[in-house]
Amino acid sequence: MNALEKLIAANDANKFICVGLDTDIEKIPSFLRSSSKPVLDFNKSIIDVVKEDAAAVKINFAFYESAGYKGIKILSETIDYIPDEILVIGDAKRGDIGNTSKMYAKSVYDHFKCDAVTLNPLLGYDSLEPFLKYEDKLNFILALTSNPGASDFEKQKLDDGIFLYQKIIQKVNKWNTMKNCGIVFGATKSDELRENMNNIGSLPVLLPGIGTQSGNLEEVVYSFKSMKRKQLLINVSRSLIYKSNRKNFAHKAKEELVRLNSKVVKLFES
Amino acid sequence: MNALEKLIAANDANKFICVGLDTDIEKIPSFLRSSSKPVLDFNKSIIDVVKEDAAAVKINFAFYESAGYKGIKILSETIDYIPDEILVIGDAKRGDIGNTSKMYAKSVYDHFKCDAVTLNPLLGYDSLEPFLKYEDKLNFILALTSNPGASDFEKQKLDDGIFLYQKIIQKVNKWNTMKNCGIVFGATKSDELRENMNNIGSLPVLLPGIGTQSGNLEEVVYSFKSMKRKQLLINVSRSLIYKSNRKNFAHKAKEELVRLNSKVVKLFES
Repeated sequence: MNALEKLIAANDANKFICVGLDTDIEKIPSFLRSSSKPVLDFNKSIIDVVKEDAAAVKINFAFYESAGYKGIKILSETIDYIPDEILVIGDAKRGDIGNTSKMYAKSVYDHFKCDAVTLNPLLGYDSLEPFLKYEDKLNFILALTSNPGASDFEKQKLDDGIFLYQKIIQKVNKWNTMKNCGIVFGATKSDELRENMNNIGSLPVLLPGIGTQSGNLEEVVYSFKSMKRKQLLINVSRSLIYKSNRKNFAHKAKEELVRLNSKVVKLFES
Repeated sequence: MNALEKLIAANDANKFICVGLDTDIEKIPSFLRSSSKPVLDFNKSIIDVVKEDAAAVKINFAFYESAGYKGIKILSETIDYIPDEILVIGDAKRGDIGNTSKMYAKSVYDHFKCDAVTLNPLLGYDSLEPFLKYEDKLNFILALTSNPGASDFEKQKLDDGIFLYQKIIQKVNKWNTMKNCGIVFGATKSDELRENMNNIGSLPVLLPGIGTQSGNLEEVVYSFKSMKRKQLLINVSRSLIYKSNRKNFAHKAKEELVRLNSKVVKLFES
């Protein structure tokens, strides 16, 4: 299965929640820290319990790179541990001039074998092109992000009357000739999401911001339901993987995943 | 010396060229490839010869990450090999929501010990803030990049009549309360550079695009000279480090560095 097929299969099986492995050594249960690879042990425990219910797993490169090459090795070992049928998103927010983006694409897709990536479009088409050449992958391009700073540039109004993030969505639709593009849209921006569903069209959407960032799950699902469309991934990271810091942390993470997923299914069915 | 002091000292010593270590195993001299660490050997040879004349060394993370954790180890060993007095720029184009950017800042500054970094401002202030908290560092924020895709979004005109990249420069000036910000401005965009020197003000400027990308060195230097200001770094990567693929590659790289630097000095003096 290619990346889009994995996403469709997950949604068809009523799986909508993407589990974000933003694994921070400071935040994992303290009893794990005595192991030789605490972050890897934590990730494996989470993967073991979420693999049947997660629509995707998103790995945040920053949390691994901050420990240098040893962290990057853990990133690699974590990805290798995820079952093949699960969509793996390399959350790397990459974007550079073409010559350099080619190396980042090589990294995310050829080396780490991710199915999908998050990309920053500020540098324009040639910064994304090396990723878009991988036709079996899914390239989630930042449109409107979940953070407060989204208002600084993404919500700047252009002289043709639309916001920068809307221009990004328009261009991504144009660049999606291989059906391997999606967008990132913050779940904290549910009004803007609702207003932009037509503009987004059929692009797959990765929605971070539920949980710690307080995005509104009901309103997000409603926007998709009203368009009678799916191909969405609602990402939850901290509020799921750190649900408990006791021995039963993995079990508690799974409970939270099942709870959120059932909630999405019910909202779609209501 | 903090990062800005290193830059000022370099410019005061008539050093303006930043050497970009975009080291690609496919492009280094073939006789090096039989070594156990060809990329590190190549970098050390270049550093040995350029250390007296380079204003800075810029390490492009993509070229190392593409080889996974082994590549990241080489990145680390390369940085460790660069003499303390030389400004080391981690060319990483990072930018994410605050919680994640904090980890990238930890990576670039605490782990890899870079003096400076390149940052992508699309996600706005809170995506840059974790980097800006390091007051002794220099944060080069992308304004107008050297690549063709710069026209897709950076050169979108906003409804207040200025381009997005000009809005970025305005905000960076506002955010520069600790004197630890600079901008990245493509040397291929020399007309825009000249027209924006007032807007840029006293911000340090990193200028990629000379060499393979055909930026105009004369016009770039003229813009700074006409404002009677320095604090600039003209980056040269491929056309310098790959000047020759023979035994004398390091010597040839140094010749190119000295040639370009002398040219800048003469342009300032003319």
